[in-house]
Amino acid sequence: MALQTQPYKGARDFYPEDKRLQKYIFGKLRETVERFGYEEYDAPILEPLDLYLAKTGEEIVNEQTYTFEDRGGRKVAIRPEMTPTVSRMVAGRRQELAYPLRWYSIPNLWRYERPQRGRLREHWQLNVDIFGVADTSAEFEIISVADAIYQSFGAKRDMYTIKLNSRKLVDFVLKDYLSLDEKAAQAIAKLIDRMHKMERSEFVTKADAIVSPEQKENGATESLLNMLSIKKLADLPAEVKSNPSVNELQIMLTRLTDVGIGNAEFDITLMRGFDYYTDVVFEIFDNNPENNRSMMGGGRYDGLVGLFGVEPTPTVGFGLGDVTLQNFLEGHRLLPVLTTETELWVAPVGNVQVSEIATELRESGVNVAVGVGGKKLGDQFKVAEKKGILNVLIIGENELAEAKFTLKNLQTGKENKHSLEQLIEVLKGGHQKG
Amino acid sequence: MALQTQPYKGARDFYPEDKRLQKYIFGKLRETVERFGYEEYDAPILEPLDLYLAKTGEEIVNEQTYTFEDRGGRKVAIRPEMTPTVSRMVAGRRQELAYPLRWYSIPNLWRYERPQRGRLREHWQLNVDIFGVADTSAEFEIISVADAIYQSFGAKRDMYTIKLNSRKLVDFVLKDYLSLDEKAAQAIAKLIDRMHKMERSEFVTKADAIVSPEQKENGATESLLNMLSIKKLADLPAEVKSNPSVNELQIMLTRLTDVGIGNAEFDITLMRGFDYYTDVVFEIFDNNPENNRSMMGGGRYDGLVGLFGVEPTPTVGFGLGDVTLQNFLEGHRLLPVLTTETELWVAPVGNVQVSEIATELRESGVNVAVGVGGKKLGDQFKVAEKKGILNVLIIGENELAEAKFTLKNLQTGKENKHSLEQLIEVLKGGHQKG
Repeated sequence: MALQTQPYKGARDFYPEDKRLQKYIFGKLRETVERFGYEEYDAPILEPLDLYLAKTGEEIVNEQTYTFEDRGGRKVAIRPEMTPTVSRMVAGRRQELAYPLRWYSIPNLWRYERPQRGRLREHWQLNVDIFGVADTSAEFEIISVADAIYQSFGAKRDMYTIKLNSRKLVDFVLKDYLSLDEKAAQAIAKLIDRMHKMERSEFVTKADAIVSPEQKENGATESLLNMLSIKKLADLPAEVKSNPSVNELQIMLTRLTDVGIGNAEFDITLMRGFDYYTDVVFEIFDNNPENNRSMMGGGRYDGLVGLFGVEPTPTVGFGLGDVTLQNFLEGHRLLPVLTTETELWVAPVGNVQVSEIATELRESGVNVAVGVGGKKLGDQFKVAEKKGILNVLIIGENELAEAKFTLKNLQTGKENKHSLEQLIEVLKGGHQKG
Repeated sequence: MALQTQPYKGARDFYPEDKRLQKYIFGKLRETVERFGYEEYDAPILEPLDLYLAKTGEEIVNEQTYTFEDRGGRKVAIRPEMTPTVSRMVAGRRQELAYPLRWYSIPNLWRYERPQRGRLREHWQLNVDIFGVADTSAEFEIISVADAIYQSFGAKRDMYTIKLNSRKLVDFVLKDYLSLDEKAAQAIAKLIDRMHKMERSEFVTKADAIVSPEQKENGATESLLNMLSIKKLADLPAEVKSNPSVNELQIMLTRLTDVGIGNAEFDITLMRGFDYYTDVVFEIFDNNPENNRSMMGGGRYDGLVGLFGVEPTPTVGFGLGDVTLQNFLEGHRLLPVLTTETELWVAPVGNVQVSEIATELRESGVNVAVGVGGKKLGDQFKVAEKKGILNVLIIGENELAEAKFTLKNLQTGKENKHSLEQLIEVLKGGHQKG
């Protein structure tokens, strides 16, 4: 039986046209985050499994991670996210590094889940983190970076919404304002995290089952629903408003509006699944009605670096996946048409050696594919055209003898004779990169 | 117990200074191969295990590959090499693609082996392949690309040696010239592949055990050793010289010399471990006496694409690992000193908002890190210096009021006042990228 040509289930092959798009997108990401002083790091795709057991949600480790035992009996995971890795790396050089530390990476991540739109088993995710800043200037910067990314692709701010919340605020609401105990508060928090995936009646049933019978009697679920329906910080009950988190969120929303980021808003239902967030959390949603979903998210996680036995380090960061970003850019028609990097096809006619000319052109910075294998000129034109190469240089014995070569533009059909020197000028002068 | 900060055994963390070097090296690789018209592709790091069982050496699959069973009962491998993957991808679109197809990739590969100098469990490997060319113009081009890579880093040709051989020639020598049967020929070929790792006496003992008693009597091992000691095509026995492979190798060596690649030579002992090579094979060796080893290799493998049940496709390609390349570049002092991409540290003095100025600078293309978190100016200087950032912009209330800002060069200590406009000119005009 012949071997299969499909890639592994839920994963993607990148043929050159796909890879070109990925390089364009990743190039924009790198350019934008480096504008803010972030430096790229990287790490192995395999990590000791222990790394994920400490603070990642258990569900992720047990049900959603690729894990196996290596031949030395070590439990190994294919990384499902980058945050534990970057925390490990910062902890490893906790004393030597200069803070604030601004780091980013675009790792390949794997999760064991059913493939669906925007959620493959494998994806690439931009991770941007700032370490060593305890106040909200870190959150402000990180959200500004996220916004700048969408701006760099030409997005308008009505195409996406930035939603902000605070774990501390939710904690206060559940434990102090609604008087839930630790266990009930945690269960309700997890329920809120999934509330947009269920009917209101299902939510009520489940919430009723979590709170105590007495609290149920006293209308705790209704109070909760009332709280969750509040859209503005100003509309929170006075008792809740006195919590410092509210002021922090307000300051951030004002600063964001001040710098033109007017599409940020408070959302008390925003939880983020990961257990490690300690304070502000945020997500960015696509406003496209056909793709109205969260595209990226992040927040403050001050406790992770300290798990490695070093001095704790305040941290704010986000992860932004390539699949959801590409869906957003396609949905809003923000992707350009990209063409091949190859600028010239050199077509030998008959048995002539063209290496020397090709080498000179390459040394002048022209990307040159040579027609090897003895194909006829007409066939070479067809191949060059199919590859999307714009220009063909025809070299036969006559051309070599007079050192003048015919340059044919495959789009216009125009032909011109040039010396090698003129040729370089024409190609490098008139060349436009995708 | 605190979590460990080390990466998984045999794998590497890339802190920003390491990643910067990798990006420099990969950038050169991409630039060089694109000059020859090669286009980048990519594929998942997980592949169905079947992919490797068909043609890769069994040793690699059984002993050296990370394999596991996923929850759906599929046998999965973390790719140990890219050649089976790229063959799969070409086969998947065999009819649609335009030949010659020039593809490259820089995949992350994993092998289960004892970490040692130049051989980690995990590495990155440039893979360059040309599909659809049956004659040696493909080998000539592929070897030219490999040579151009070393040249692009400023290497001289006396720093490395390109060694060429032909599987067909070796086959002829073993089966026809030395009259070994199929099984003995294969065993001897594998023995030759390892001959530089053993004493001559060990080789003789092992070869004696492979050939038939009669052949041993007739001095087959001695004849073999004589053949393997031949350094030039011209010195081969007349009977061997009549094999077409010899002429092919000679033509290639002549063409390479003609274009200035004078460091290529015939090496009859060069085998390459992989079972899938069908004709010409080559490797490049570091001439550094302290690192005298093979850095990369490749050859012709015409049989792989056809394994997927499509029309066979002649293919020539090579793989070039990042670790051995870096050892080469370091050994010959060919690596530049790279500096941070961050060009400016904006230092707020007291409680001033600098976002607007930072944004304007960023929009003009300057990479700007802002001193957040309320540190004193002196401390900000120290942090910027530790990060290797050359310039600091000091912004206090006075500076904001008069819209003139002090730019301090941390290397020279010089300070100058500039308007925002002048600043952009100074920074973008005088900036030199690593």
